[in-house]
Amino acid sequence: MAPRWKGETAEAKEPMSVIVSKLQTSLIESNAQGLLSGCAVLLEALPEQTELLYRACIGRPLITAEKDKKQWHQLSFEEALYLCCVLKCIKIAGENKCAKSNDELWHYMMVKRVGFPVMFKAYSHLRRKNWVVRAGSQYGVDYVAYRYHPAFVHSEYAVLALPDDEDGGSENSRLKVWSDFHCTLRLCGSVAKTLLVLHISRNGEDDVVSLSSLEHYSVEERVVTRWNPEVSRDAK
Amino acid sequence: MAPRWKGETAEAKEPMSVIVSKLQTSLIESNAQGLLSGCAVLLEALPEQTELLYRACIGRPLITAEKDKKQWHQLSFEEALYLCCVLKCIKIAGENKCAKSNDELWHYMMVKRVGFPVMFKAYSHLRRKNWVVRAGSQYGVDYVAYRYHPAFVHSEYAVLALPDDEDGGSENSRLKVWSDFHCTLRLCGSVAKTLLVLHISRNGEDDVVSLSSLEHYSVEERVVTRWNPEVSRDAK
Repeated sequence: MAPRWKGETAEAKEPMSVIVSKLQTSLIESNAQGLLSGCAVLLEALPEQTELLYRACIGRPLITAEKDKKQWHQLSFEEALYLCCVLKCIKIAGENKCAKSNDELWHYMMVKRVGFPVMFKAYSHLRRKNWVVRAGSQYGVDYVAYRYHPAFVHSEYAVLALPDDEDGGSENSRLKVWSDFHCTLRLCGSVAKTLLVLHISRNGEDDVVSLSSLEHYSVEERVVTRWNPEVSRDAK
Repeated sequence: MAPRWKGETAEAKEPMSVIVSKLQTSLIESNAQGLLSGCAVLLEALPEQTELLYRACIGRPLITAEKDKKQWHQLSFEEALYLCCVLKCIKIAGENKCAKSNDELWHYMMVKRVGFPVMFKAYSHLRRKNWVVRAGSQYGVDYVAYRYHPAFVHSEYAVLALPDDEDGGSENSRLKVWSDFHCTLRLCGSVAKTLLVLHISRNGEDDVVSLSSLEHYSVEERVVTRWNPEVSRDAK
């Protein structure tokens, strides 16, 4: 499926990998540090970083009284952890203003959000492939994935991240019954998205250990579409 | 919410209770007998019964070569059991052509369909209140409920029947996570239906016992809609 453009396409052409790389360099140079705040991370950014965060579609700017100065951004746990532990371009501090270690962050986020390891694995999996990933609650899924910035294109994929548990754990109990499948596929169809299911196997890793255990998780991508009988018909 | 009419409304005015009552009388008079066939029940009906089955929206006629004669209808398990055990107007036979007892039927259907007791409780609960109940798979729910015949109105309710298990059994694991809730509500909104959740409590009854144990089940009806802030705003 090709991306569905919203209008002018020229501006979108800079590859996402280049934009993210510029953001990474800039944040490293300025020793950027985020602050844990409940279920989010606040990050103060220079004007050029604000521009790059917007173009990379990471976080959202908070409304502030000051203009033409530094701008505060609110990052989700996934976004903050990705910048901190995958791109290694920000530090994140807790209430005492001291930067937390990766494992301290990991533990904090896991306690705050049920099923966070599986969600972060899915988020980072797609981001590493240069998809733009945003929350999908509007469409009843975990994420939506865009090929370019959402200002230019509609999202192509509605993404569900499902742990591949033997016990069918209740952590993200989606697509276990037909009515849920029908509901999700019909909704995806009506908003012109393809359902992408990321089955995430823990491969025996216990998810409470540490961030490094995430490397042992594996991701299986399944695109779910309705079968079109025309496809297999003889072209006579 | 008022029913959304499809066009002419005059024909729909005969109450559903009257139509069902006529069907019941006619089937009793003709000693009607259905035949179990896999996951359905086949019922041969006289022309007047065919008309009444259509108007009551029970079963669907099978295409046959013969015209102006008896017509075969295919009933779902819910429809057949409702006619047999609630309205007591048909008998149902198995392969040996002998009418099965209520408990034999119950056991047969429970083995064939996972979660059937809860589904039948929901179906009969709505039918007793004279709602027209049809399968809801098209909308990703268990049933849809119409105020009149589907030829005259669109369905008003999208219905999910959920067992109220302490252990959160996987039988019908819907609406356990937010993304499923969002998905279902958005879909219901886009097809102009109200989500009706029937929470069915077994009240300690073990559902393998018999049809009579269904009387101890209780049904709690919950309509789920998005909250509209306007509603609580002062009318100044």
